[in-house]
Amino acid sequence: MMSLKMNGKEGSFGIKISSNEGKLPETRNKFKVWMYKIWEFAKEDINRVTFSLKVGLAVLLVSLLILFQAPYQVFSTSIIWSILTVAIMFEYTVGATFHKGFNRVLGSLFAGVLAIAIAELALMSGPVAEPIIIGISIFIIGSVTSFMKLWPTFVPYEYGFRVILFTYCLIIVSGYRSGNPIRTSIERLYSIAIGAIIAIAVNTLIFPIWAGEQLHKELVKSFNSVADSLEECVNKYLSNDGSDHSEFTNTLMDEFPDEPQYKKCRSTLNSSAKLESLALSAKWEPPHGRFRHLFYPWSEYVKVGAVLRYCAYEVMALHGVLHSEIQAPYNLRSIFETEISEATNKAADLIRCLGKDICDMKQTIKSTLVRSVRSSSERLQRAIETHAYLLASSYQLSDHNSSIPLPINGFSKSNQLAEFKRENEEEGEMNSQRILSVSWESTAALSLATFTSLLIEFVARLDHLVEAVHHLSQMAKFQHENLNIFLLPIEEFNFNSMAIELKIY
Amino acid sequence: MMSLKMNGKEGSFGIKISSNEGKLPETRNKFKVWMYKIWEFAKEDINRVTFSLKVGLAVLLVSLLILFQAPYQVFSTSIIWSILTVAIMFEYTVGATFHKGFNRVLGSLFAGVLAIAIAELALMSGPVAEPIIIGISIFIIGSVTSFMKLWPTFVPYEYGFRVILFTYCLIIVSGYRSGNPIRTSIERLYSIAIGAIIAIAVNTLIFPIWAGEQLHKELVKSFNSVADSLEECVNKYLSNDGSDHSEFTNTLMDEFPDEPQYKKCRSTLNSSAKLESLALSAKWEPPHGRFRHLFYPWSEYVKVGAVLRYCAYEVMALHGVLHSEIQAPYNLRSIFETEISEATNKAADLIRCLGKDICDMKQTIKSTLVRSVRSSSERLQRAIETHAYLLASSYQLSDHNSSIPLPINGFSKSNQLAEFKRENEEEGEMNSQRILSVSWESTAALSLATFTSLLIEFVARLDHLVEAVHHLSQMAKFQHENLNIFLLPIEEFNFNSMAIELKIY
Repeated sequence: MMSLKMNGKEGSFGIKISSNEGKLPETRNKFKVWMYKIWEFAKEDINRVTFSLKVGLAVLLVSLLILFQAPYQVFSTSIIWSILTVAIMFEYTVGATFHKGFNRVLGSLFAGVLAIAIAELALMSGPVAEPIIIGISIFIIGSVTSFMKLWPTFVPYEYGFRVILFTYCLIIVSGYRSGNPIRTSIERLYSIAIGAIIAIAVNTLIFPIWAGEQLHKELVKSFNSVADSLEECVNKYLSNDGSDHSEFTNTLMDEFPDEPQYKKCRSTLNSSAKLESLALSAKWEPPHGRFRHLFYPWSEYVKVGAVLRYCAYEVMALHGVLHSEIQAPYNLRSIFETEISEATNKAADLIRCLGKDICDMKQTIKSTLVRSVRSSSERLQRAIETHAYLLASSYQLSDHNSSIPLPINGFSKSNQLAEFKRENEEEGEMNSQRILSVSWESTAALSLATFTSLLIEFVARLDHLVEAVHHLSQMAKFQHENLNIFLLPIEEFNFNSMAIELKIY
Repeated sequence: MMSLKMNGKEGSFGIKISSNEGKLPETRNKFKVWMYKIWEFAKEDINRVTFSLKVGLAVLLVSLLILFQAPYQVFSTSIIWSILTVAIMFEYTVGATFHKGFNRVLGSLFAGVLAIAIAELALMSGPVAEPIIIGISIFIIGSVTSFMKLWPTFVPYEYGFRVILFTYCLIIVSGYRSGNPIRTSIERLYSIAIGAIIAIAVNTLIFPIWAGEQLHKELVKSFNSVADSLEECVNKYLSNDGSDHSEFTNTLMDEFPDEPQYKKCRSTLNSSAKLESLALSAKWEPPHGRFRHLFYPWSEYVKVGAVLRYCAYEVMALHGVLHSEIQAPYNLRSIFETEISEATNKAADLIRCLGKDICDMKQTIKSTLVRSVRSSSERLQRAIETHAYLLASSYQLSDHNSSIPLPINGFSKSNQLAEFKRENEEEGEMNSQRILSVSWESTAALSLATFTSLLIEFVARLDHLVEAVHHLSQMAKFQHENLNIFLLPIEEFNFNSMAIELKIY
């Protein structure tokens, strides 16, 4: 994704150069292009530069402890463990750093205590048994920690188990050689604590990059992606006159250069891992910025993301119809253009409104908007119903069908199918082709029914989304814009009552 | 996913215990349940145990270098770096270990050379400037490596940049204190090399777990998941008599306890990251087992996975129709039961056949199967066409519509809509409800059209899948079962010719 973006940029820059400094030698030109790419990459998200400089600062600070004479005399060579701790602990976001620091410190503490206990035990059992006990204990610790980190619950703490393993080995082995495991452990814990404190201080106090803030932005971006790609897909469907069928190869590669939003929607579908890891990090962060209360419901963000993905699947299906082989004729689509457009725009507005509410951390009243989305969806359904005869194109087959009784049952249908097949076989190829093309015209019309059904289903799913966002905003105590009724109760949604009506009817 | 599976097992075990050893005290019982869970977890994939024991063995081997007197005298205390290397490098699969080892060794080498150069430079510039130069260089290395690892191309080598950073700091700082940076670097490289050799030897020679094998199995599993979930979804659709509408809450949580395959299909949708990381690791592996030739096309597996995911989106959409609010009546569904079942079973068979071919690394002739899938899909289309009048239920509105001229244009439709609305407003609520319920009955019938359209689109997408698998099997030189024509050319696919006919018509 990113590299694609940059390719685009490279192209535009190439043009710029040739007009301004066309006389530069080729190599210099390439270097400049390269520098420009880096510059653009840094400008795209200034946090990248902040993060890099912060790492530089953290390792510099910890190195000063050795470079200056005074602290070096206090801490001696074990201080190099601080450098390792900083380099390993320093993560992009504050939460991830805390999470890794927790793993490292707890792992080291646990390993230290265990190593001291086993070392003392080994020491008591005499010089022959000592290395044997140590060796066996190393094997056991290695196996057990490795097995435990595969256990699903412990997967996020994988690094902690690694820390336990190597800290234990280092302490017990160097304790064996120096003869003083307690001193070795304590020195190591000192050094790790110093490294951890420096890493956390620099990461938290100087331009902190919060995982929570990133998660918040990521979710809002997903809302806009889904809304944009819905509009893009529907607009393309309505404007498409059927002349430019997408190529098989295009569909295969999932690349539609003229549909930039589609890519974003697809990346939303694959964003679950990203949201989850950000939420995991965010849980480690203290209250900060706009997220002021303790135990902020970060996991709700993941849930809202899941419901949004659930809506995005429908957009993918709409997209599938847009690029399928059999297409409804343009004039048929244009009949429903107003209703489809209206439902789409209303739905996209609602999604954007939900996204904006999350972005601003506000609870606004969406009942008008929700009602208008629902009624536009109903209008679309009504329009489809009124023109159902067009969609099914049954008039074209009236010669065959007029005599068939209306009651729906499998028997009359098999008769009819048999009749159809007989005709198909008896008559010549020309005639069969005629029937087939009539057939596909009708199926083509049904593809419009599919498109609208999917759109209506998408609107129906928005209810879950509204509910999920409502739940998030209550859990996260978003500000109320005012105190009227926030939402229509779900029961008011006409689909439900219609479904019930259907059963009764 | 895994935890869910285990919950299921816990349940079944609970029953087992109460029948066999019901008199055990509660705590002991819990401990046994816990042990049983671990046992089941290990049995589920025996590689987990192998991996754990191998880690134990590797750290034991490297510790022996210190525990025995002879090697310790040769290597002295710097050997502890070997322990660190083993603990950090040892990954689950051979490929991942190679990948991490490459990062570690190359990073250390680069950092070592750079550190020696800068240290010599600093040494020459006198005792005052030396710590300043070292400090500045540490800051620059910290910032540059951190920035570079954010660059999309370098993201897989993130660990390498981390290694460069801390190795550089460690060597230059301890070189400054010991006054001999070259000796420090060489000792460190020695130790790292020993650790790396032990880690790789144990990982590769003793019951190796190949990332390639895992990737291969994972892809085959995905094929079966998609086939199973397709069949499950369609069978449920056909057997569902409409009486048990799924609850909104169920849909919201995406949890359908009676649809085990649906979960698997969803996990297939989220498997892209897993496949990509396995393919990245597999590229580092030497030819092994069944994958005997160099440069085996592991990246093709990722591509086939992407095309399969593209098919799985349609299954998700089918699933959406299955659980949507408005449902086609059961008797209407049953009309098309034969055709829908046939198309589904044929499609599922084809997917399973493709999966089996990959599994067995064979190229079998699928033309008969492909043709039969296509013809079953055509039969379904024809059936839909023949019964289009049932789907649209236009007869129910014949009072309103019979007088409306057939030509398709927006004008007559708006007239009709206006008329419809007028009626709707003028007449009482009862009447409007009647009209609405007629309306929804018709829309309900159209939902069957949606379902079948999606199924037909799914079949159309299988073509891409056949093509992708064919490409993979050629790249990977799968064995030919025999030498007849492997596939129908894409042009023969009737959808295409029909689409063309449509345009002409």
